Amino acid sequence: METLRVELGDRSYPILIGQGLLGERALLEQHLRARDLLVVTNTVVAPLYLHTLEATLQPRRAIVTVLPDGESHKTLDSVARILDVLVANRFGRDCAVVALGGGVVGDMAGFAAASYQRGVAFAQIPTTLLAQVDSSVGGKTGVNHPGGKNLIGAFHQPLVVVADTRTLATLPPRQLQAGLAEVIKYGLICDAGFFAWLEANLEPLLAGDATALAYVIRRSCEIKAEIVGRDERERGERALLNLGHTFGHAVESATGYTEWLHGEAIGAGLVMAASMSRACGLLTAEELERVTCLVARAGLPTHVPNVKPDVALELMRIDKKVQSGKIRLVLLRGIGSAFVTSDYDEPALRRTLAMHLG
Amino acid sequence: METLRVELGDRSYPILIGQGLLGERALLEQHLRARDLLVVTNTVVAPLYLHTLEATLQPRRAIVTVLPDGESHKTLDSVARILDVLVANRFGRDCAVVALGGGVVGDMAGFAAASYQRGVAFAQIPTTLLAQVDSSVGGKTGVNHPGGKNLIGAFHQPLVVVADTRTLATLPPRQLQAGLAEVIKYGLICDAGFFAWLEANLEPLLAGDATALAYVIRRSCEIKAEIVGRDERERGERALLNLGHTFGHAVESATGYTEWLHGEAIGAGLVMAASMSRACGLLTAEELERVTCLVARAGLPTHVPNVKPDVALELMRIDKKVQSGKIRLVLLRGIGSAFVTSDYDEPALRRTLAMHLG
Repeated sequence: METLRVELGDRSYPILIGQGLLGERALLEQHLRARDLLVVTNTVVAPLYLHTLEATLQPRRAIVTVLPDGESHKTLDSVARILDVLVANRFGRDCAVVALGGGVVGDMAGFAAASYQRGVAFAQIPTTLLAQVDSSVGGKTGVNHPGGKNLIGAFHQPLVVVADTRTLATLPPRQLQAGLAEVIKYGLICDAGFFAWLEANLEPLLAGDATALAYVIRRSCEIKAEIVGRDERERGERALLNLGHTFGHAVESATGYTEWLHGEAIGAGLVMAASMSRACGLLTAEELERVTCLVARAGLPTHVPNVKPDVALELMRIDKKVQSGKIRLVLLRGIGSAFVTSDYDEPALRRTLAMHLG
Repeated sequence: METLRVELGDRSYPILIGQGLLGERALLEQHLRARDLLVVTNTVVAPLYLHTLEATLQPRRAIVTVLPDGESHKTLDSVARILDVLVANRFGRDCAVVALGGGVVGDMAGFAAASYQRGVAFAQIPTTLLAQVDSSVGGKTGVNHPGGKNLIGAFHQPLVVVADTRTLATLPPRQLQAGLAEVIKYGLICDAGFFAWLEANLEPLLAGDATALAYVIRRSCEIKAEIVGRDERERGERALLNLGHTFGHAVESATGYTEWLHGEAIGAGLVMAASMSRACGLLTAEELERVTCLVARAGLPTHVPNVKPDVALELMRIDKKVQSGKIRLVLLRGIGSAFVTSDYDEPALRRTLAMHLG
């Protein structure tokens, strides 16, 4: 087992990464002491891992809520259902909510934990690559609004993140590919060496090689933990982690959160961010080609045919990165060097959208 | 104008108290700089003060949401309505939500501000005595659940609290009396001199004497600001501010949040807390008599006929003050000396409830 730490003063917490952690009772008890537990999971994950987790949590009182699967269910109504269960079971402030699943489950369970009695303890047990490398770390929780992605939520740090890499063995290839989008993102933001490593090792990753996956999870969490530790509430540097997300959220929102997985939309978003950076003269043709090629090799879309560029632009305007009416973009000055800007050529943005959408 | 300060590091903020502050454009601009504002108010307050506030906020963009009046509307659905308006108007992270009204409006607007884009700026403009002395200060926001009071919410501190004492002139007597419950609470918790002052000056307060009310608001906010500054998240001392509230919340919940105003339920709750303290041998008969008498003179109930003691006890068990299954009570060792305990005689609690309820 490897242990990383997110350093946030009295909200610091460990990320535990290893094979079979879901079955380690002493470990889970050490990091999660509450007697009353609500496990939130979904219809896909429950048949696979709920039994193991329930056995590990014994003899504590663990109530279970099983939600429908998919980003389209990441709504305030689903969170209200979780809250109903907490109230119905008379859970006190000393209870804990445990998210067992991917990013959608973690985001909703986390927001319920943030809101119940103005905040109760919370543990993340991510079971997808995307959740293990990205969404379970950093305390962003929340739900979508019909008007835009993740518009409702809270910052609420978990007590612990338990990434059991064995769960990736049952992950459908499409989900594994989606997770790689966030992994590629970390390389693009700040680690050209990691990006090159991904170029060289993509095939074993796609084949589910445990050693390669463990390395990718550790390096991704390291980068995220460092950035979140310096800027928990996204007042500056943390915005870099949104590389590809303003574009990607517009794709998800335009397609009703049903057609593309989050990671797939982010894959296309990374290509659009690189393409826009190229249009602004910041990236060479060769660098753009490397980005596009790696995203495509990971089985992710580089072009989204059924979204109109105008619709995407409108949706980008309601995204959280907007300040004083101007869309803020995360662009690239090179592979491994992202920055945030509101100072760019609007027509170039329109051309970039037209090139990759519609 | 008087200015107090809630000291919470980078979340510190001023409480401004004075006549006619609602009309002071420069003051409001100084403390609330956002260009995009959402004013949340209700059907009772809007006809009285919305026009003045809108004029003061000009030329900034102020959208208005008018909610129905009353504690029974303090629900997650009402907060969802506020969030819909923020999304529909494409407000960015740099917007601010302004609560114009009593405690219900402030609690809901504050929770919407806490949840929109994981937290936007928020200003409290309380227009009831209860909101000016208590609910607008300290950052507690949230809504009720059918299973219990304030079970869903967030800690989210305002940027500023603007208490325009002129708004109390239009306050119905019943609302003024309800506010006095929280004022009496402060005396009971930690200031016997203030309690004695209230005994001596209750008639001018009930008659709406501006000087007496201004003193009461300042002293109440001073006490609350000190306690909140030392314990923002209620890990210890802040729980003292719940004196009378575990009892009072049960009364409100049992009567569906429609029959009693919050402050009325708290009035009865203070008497029950004092009565329980007497039953535990902590308070003299004379002290209990002083508490009961002051609550009654303030026009507040000391006995609630239509709530069954067993029902109240069940509701107290789901209240947020429960830890490890035992109801935590705030009791009195004397007037001006409250403390929190889980170590009390259960039959005495049942007798106390039977004496004041049903």
